[in-house]
Amino acid sequence: MYVPKHFQQTDTATLFEVIRDYPLATLITVTDQGLEANHIPFCLNRTDGKNRLQGHLAKGNPLWKNLPDGSEVLVVFQGPHAYISPSHYPTKQETGMVVPTWNYIAVHVRGTLQYRHDPEWCQTLVENLTNQQEARQDSPWAVSDAPQAYVDKMLAAVVGIEIEITDITGKWKVSQNQPERNLLGVAEGLSRDTNTEVQKMAAVVGKRVLAS
Amino acid sequence: MYVPKHFQQTDTATLFEVIRDYPLATLITVTDQGLEANHIPFCLNRTDGKNRLQGHLAKGNPLWKNLPDGSEVLVVFQGPHAYISPSHYPTKQETGMVVPTWNYIAVHVRGTLQYRHDPEWCQTLVENLTNQQEARQDSPWAVSDAPQAYVDKMLAAVVGIEIEITDITGKWKVSQNQPERNLLGVAEGLSRDTNTEVQKMAAVVGKRVLAS
Repeated sequence: MYVPKHFQQTDTATLFEVIRDYPLATLITVTDQGLEANHIPFCLNRTDGKNRLQGHLAKGNPLWKNLPDGSEVLVVFQGPHAYISPSHYPTKQETGMVVPTWNYIAVHVRGTLQYRHDPEWCQTLVENLTNQQEARQDSPWAVSDAPQAYVDKMLAAVVGIEIEITDITGKWKVSQNQPERNLLGVAEGLSRDTNTEVQKMAAVVGKRVLAS
Repeated sequence: MYVPKHFQQTDTATLFEVIRDYPLATLITVTDQGLEANHIPFCLNRTDGKNRLQGHLAKGNPLWKNLPDGSEVLVVFQGPHAYISPSHYPTKQETGMVVPTWNYIAVHVRGTLQYRHDPEWCQTLVENLTNQQEARQDSPWAVSDAPQAYVDKMLAAVVGIEIEITDITGKWKVSQNQPERNLLGVAEGLSRDTNTEVQKMAAVVGKRVLAS
């Protein structure tokens, strides 16, 4: 990913926040069958001083047969994004010298993938992933709410995957290359959009104004 | 991408709709420098009986120097997605035999990438991309609103890319593997979410009920 210096995000806590808030990632792999992408929700695991992504594949997905254990993979998490109309820039009125762009937040993780066939490992993973997502619900469902025999059957249909993170890159393309009055215009303009993801981008741009 | 038969979406018009509604794609490439992903907005172009994705890279992005003209690439478009809590399933009360999942819509395009260095080609592309996005705005901005000398300067800083589509795959993972009362529960549950993308997934699941 091309990341000009002013769009770099190096704060690890902020990068991990995106992984937690936007867990459905794109797992990108290269095998003898070629380039492939699969959409997998991941859970961040931080134990023993290591950072890992944990997830699972359906056993029906041939990836685990085609991609050798220990392969290098790329995992892309995407945060909020929004088309930025020049109409949001006050400098449009002043000089007319404006063009549209796209704001977005992306976190790219590189690491080594290992398969986990142990049903207990898989059960812990689905519990962690479930608890993370259910925390937003009014009455959180727990894996223990289902009969264990049924859970065992479900777990037998998946293969655990664990990716030890060797590199993490964050790109926050959030109008940093604009003068402050344009940042304010973008934050204000996007905040009026009906799409809540666009509103989240408005908040990110607005924070930049406060920080500057 | 692993696509079980019941999650396949083969209607080309529906696939192209996602490309138009979610144009910010992930361009995935393999070069001597390894596996890479870049986030690029694309415009669909359908002329001469061919389907092409058109976009541009910043000249500062080394990809156009590292990736040879004519390379095979993978472009991933992602539509709405949502975590599906078992709480949305009426069958949870009946049997307890339910587990969470993630619904999502993805369109994967494969094709051959060619660079376009012609400034006129690039101007037409940015006009098409701009007009597509500005159609949603109250007072649409047009490229012709900016001084042409400024537009020329901006165009000199990008490289056009065109991908002739050789394959397109759609995955609509939208609760088709659930009984109708669970589809209704998911549509109703997601429609109450405050996130508008989750509400869009509710509408997609709801349409399945009507169609079934």
